[in-house]
Amino acid sequence: MLSKNQIKFVSSLQQKKFRIEYNLFIAEGNKIVKELLNSSLVVKQLYATSEFLVNERIESSIETFEINEKELARISALTNVNQVLAVCEIPNYIFDIEALQNKLTLVLDEIKDPGNLGTIIRIADWFGIENIICSTHTADIYNPKVVQSSMGSISRIKCHYLDLMTFFKETKLKPQQPIYGALLKGENIYTKSLTKNGFIVIGNESKGISESITEYVTDKISIPSFSYYKSNEGEAESLNAAIATSIICSEFRRRE
Amino acid sequence: MLSKNQIKFVSSLQQKKFRIEYNLFIAEGNKIVKELLNSSLVVKQLYATSEFLVNERIESSIETFEINEKELARISALTNVNQVLAVCEIPNYIFDIEALQNKLTLVLDEIKDPGNLGTIIRIADWFGIENIICSTHTADIYNPKVVQSSMGSISRIKCHYLDLMTFFKETKLKPQQPIYGALLKGENIYTKSLTKNGFIVIGNESKGISESITEYVTDKISIPSFSYYKSNEGEAESLNAAIATSIICSEFRRRE
Repeated sequence: MLSKNQIKFVSSLQQKKFRIEYNLFIAEGNKIVKELLNSSLVVKQLYATSEFLVNERIESSIETFEINEKELARISALTNVNQVLAVCEIPNYIFDIEALQNKLTLVLDEIKDPGNLGTIIRIADWFGIENIICSTHTADIYNPKVVQSSMGSISRIKCHYLDLMTFFKETKLKPQQPIYGALLKGENIYTKSLTKNGFIVIGNESKGISESITEYVTDKISIPSFSYYKSNEGEAESLNAAIATSIICSEFRRRE
Repeated sequence: MLSKNQIKFVSSLQQKKFRIEYNLFIAEGNKIVKELLNSSLVVKQLYATSEFLVNERIESSIETFEINEKELARISALTNVNQVLAVCEIPNYIFDIEALQNKLTLVLDEIKDPGNLGTIIRIADWFGIENIICSTHTADIYNPKVVQSSMGSISRIKCHYLDLMTFFKETKLKPQQPIYGALLKGENIYTKSLTKNGFIVIGNESKGISESITEYVTDKISIPSFSYYKSNEGEAESLNAAIATSIICSEFRRRE
């Protein structure tokens, strides 16, 4: 049986202010929770059905509550509840700019949609991009929708929230790293030579990369359209931000 | 003022059975509706605020209702209403297999998520793929969530719902077209030679391509992972179906 306080506590973690207050976030679903249990992240509590618990070896350090699906529905952020909800500690990754030298790093300039952000984290994981720098106006990676759509990749990718202007202004890596920016008018990514290191800036879903950040971009890149329609016939205007990210990451990696 | 019957009628189009009964679907939002008004699709009714109508030249054949935002919210399928909702005719595209000769065509084997389907339609539009063949269990392209996430591309891409087994069994194009299948174990798409024509089969979000359809695949392709993690450390298992589609389409087109 769940107490009223437990329901209140777990549900509160759907809100950012309580996630910050407790330094905790929630993750749901068999696949994701199993990944988190096997990751370096710290799981503090498990709320799970007997069906889930019978198949898992749970460490004794994790406070575990066996509940039924009806109770799970009361604390869940999902429409269709699964067998398990985990309460996890928000990790404290130290941002070390030197560690980014010679690596590819994604920079998100105000990605607002939680589904897009989660998908981008999953793409980064697939393409071996360990770090994502998020502008302070990007969605919160511990928003339950982001956690769900990242499909466990959140346990492997380090996201750092920074003021992008200050970051680009003060970043003095030697040798200087290229700053690629995905823009509607840039060099054709298929024919441009790309480095194995540097930053790839992805802009907001509707506004793209903000003007002040575009100034720091050293290499403007574009994904050409192959549409049969001309722009006056209503050609597709743009790709979704996560889709553009995937094509760009694929281009950087396939050449290695 | 909207009558009760109008509210009932427009809202009913959120359900597939009424879309079939009336042969109509709804689209919302300035950008999408403007694209539809300029497309070959037939817009039958517009429910719009004065703000929208003052800036648009609406053909007299379209039944137009000026309403306020509160009324719009009553017929909208969206959480945040926009200035306009359009009721459009479902087009009757004739499926001509000969027309697919020498072209790339996407085949969706049970894409269930409306957001994924809409995104895939947008990708097809960007990469000049005019036709999508959907299995009968794929989400309905006239579902409001699909229409929204396709961002207007729905007016340009022809989707055909077919029984895939029958289709592949009976398709006899000469010369034979390759049938590419996105599978977890296939040839590395980055190094495989790809044709300018054929079918690209994308599988269901969790089950992938069904076994019976895999039998017809002539060329198994995979997107390699560049993850730093090994599979026993919980490497990213797969990419989202729309993400995989975008990377595959990009690979086919960049070589042209």
